[in-house]
Amino acid sequence: MSLAITYADIEAAAQRLRGVAHRTPVLTSRTANERTGAQLFFKCENLQRTGAFKFRGAYHALAQLTPEQSKHGVLAFSSGNHAQAIALAARLLGMPAVIVMPQDAPPLKIEATKGYGAEVVLYDRYTEDREALSARIARERGMTLIPPYDHAHVMAGQGTAAKELLEEVGALDLLLVCVGGGGLISGCAVAARQLAPQCAVIGVEPEAGNDVQQSLKRGEIVHIDVPRTIADGAQTQHAGRLTFPVIRELVRDIATVSDAALIRTLRFFAERMKIVVEPTGCLAAAAALEGAVPVAGKRIGVIVSGGNIDRTRYAQLLTREPA
Amino acid sequence: MSLAITYADIEAAAQRLRGVAHRTPVLTSRTANERTGAQLFFKCENLQRTGAFKFRGAYHALAQLTPEQSKHGVLAFSSGNHAQAIALAARLLGMPAVIVMPQDAPPLKIEATKGYGAEVVLYDRYTEDREALSARIARERGMTLIPPYDHAHVMAGQGTAAKELLEEVGALDLLLVCVGGGGLISGCAVAARQLAPQCAVIGVEPEAGNDVQQSLKRGEIVHIDVPRTIADGAQTQHAGRLTFPVIRELVRDIATVSDAALIRTLRFFAERMKIVVEPTGCLAAAAALEGAVPVAGKRIGVIVSGGNIDRTRYAQLLTREPA
Repeated sequence: MSLAITYADIEAAAQRLRGVAHRTPVLTSRTANERTGAQLFFKCENLQRTGAFKFRGAYHALAQLTPEQSKHGVLAFSSGNHAQAIALAARLLGMPAVIVMPQDAPPLKIEATKGYGAEVVLYDRYTEDREALSARIARERGMTLIPPYDHAHVMAGQGTAAKELLEEVGALDLLLVCVGGGGLISGCAVAARQLAPQCAVIGVEPEAGNDVQQSLKRGEIVHIDVPRTIADGAQTQHAGRLTFPVIRELVRDIATVSDAALIRTLRFFAERMKIVVEPTGCLAAAAALEGAVPVAGKRIGVIVSGGNIDRTRYAQLLTREPA
Repeated sequence: MSLAITYADIEAAAQRLRGVAHRTPVLTSRTANERTGAQLFFKCENLQRTGAFKFRGAYHALAQLTPEQSKHGVLAFSSGNHAQAIALAARLLGMPAVIVMPQDAPPLKIEATKGYGAEVVLYDRYTEDREALSARIARERGMTLIPPYDHAHVMAGQGTAAKELLEEVGALDLLLVCVGGGGLISGCAVAARQLAPQCAVIGVEPEAGNDVQQSLKRGEIVHIDVPRTIADGAQTQHAGRLTFPVIRELVRDIATVSDAALIRTLRFFAERMKIVVEPTGCLAAAAALEGAVPVAGKRIGVIVSGGNIDRTRYAQLLTREPA
């Protein structure tokens, strides 16, 4: 079976994103290198527009809607980074956007999404079905639903992060990428196969939410309950029908890290690298810094996927939580 | 009277720093631009090695010591970013370094300085004179004292930050730079005069520590008491004999900002730009974001000078202090 995307799709995405998405910096840290014995290259998607890699896929998907589709606009259900990415991309492309969010989502996130110009529709997560609600709004208004990961244009957009990294630093031995629904890692794996065929791609999940690790073992998509982890961007319950075949074919392995390891990594980023990284964004780095993957002697790319975290919560993780 | 440095000195510094100092990223923020009506380019020296621009000047100064001087090594008295910069630069150049620090300096800073390989000599700030102590150690061990700002090689090194910024983003209307002893702004002003002659350079001091603002009014170096401000890197009591003439000739004006403005700016950097910036590093940005300088309609460079702050203190500033 052919995979949902090819490298040509990632090249096309890179063209569309030129001058729109940030070409995010790649940071290095002597301390991180000394601690691991590896040479680490951190691709800082926390410094991407809207604070996460999600903007790449969202913009790339929206840019390909027909004029008719664009006129009616787009809809997404998300309380996370996908929501803000869709909101900003829609605004930049001049189309309406509706984001369906739980009414108990953090007010800051609701405000940020509105700030990007989207209409926010709140629902009660205990009594309403967001998928049914979203489908109804989409039908009534003729809007196009953009899923957060299981979409070829979204996957190709996310892959541009690895493309930029490999073009900037050259071949790598290993690329570490966090895994939620698999949109980022599937795009990155396709880019790596083309640009650095010797580079192993390893996904990183929270210990409590290792559905993709289980899925690879079983050879089919495993569904899990909503995992209890501070990595809220990786609380997905299963990989996608488009992303999973790419992961199965191109990803070498899946590692897992604990929440405590994520907190230590978040503090490392703040204290030593001076960047704000949300817990989910710490997954790939934690695998290297905490020994979940053998890294010594290797040149390693690490995708730092996002930095969106409420400052009160961030302050707590910096100081008050055990790690 | 000729100034202590010329643009040729900055070019020489750039050569020496190539491949040693980070070419730090320039970040932009749609939100910051919308709020100010300006186009802001943030030169992120918080992402420099040792977490501050100070590494540029320190390395450049140490790289020019004679073999004999290098053998005996260098000495600095500082509890701040200069200490860590000298420590790392000495280590990279293979020379001994002694850093004289108050014994009540934050343990984290003492450890970080030792971590860079320097010998730390502690003194009691209530009973001992650090200058006399430093002079004695320098004499006994034949070490070269490297001052934090009033030194031509240090000033030229710091100027490479503005050189990189202007080369990357092109001409600017305004360049905002924090002012402590004046090393950074004097180097940057010399770079700007050469690379963007129409660019006004404005310095930014804490309200409580506006000695350079006073000095420019009086036409001579004014000494003040140690100012009470959270911008600990700008608690200098007077500009330098080498830096002040450069400031007087090339700096258009000095603006000041309050500690509350610094805290709001620190939070803006964390929440919207995902970078950790220490209070002193927020000075230049605060002048733009808080209206201390007219910025609308202009292309503006902002030097983000450093990101070294204890995480407990940082968490406090993010949440518990009024702003």
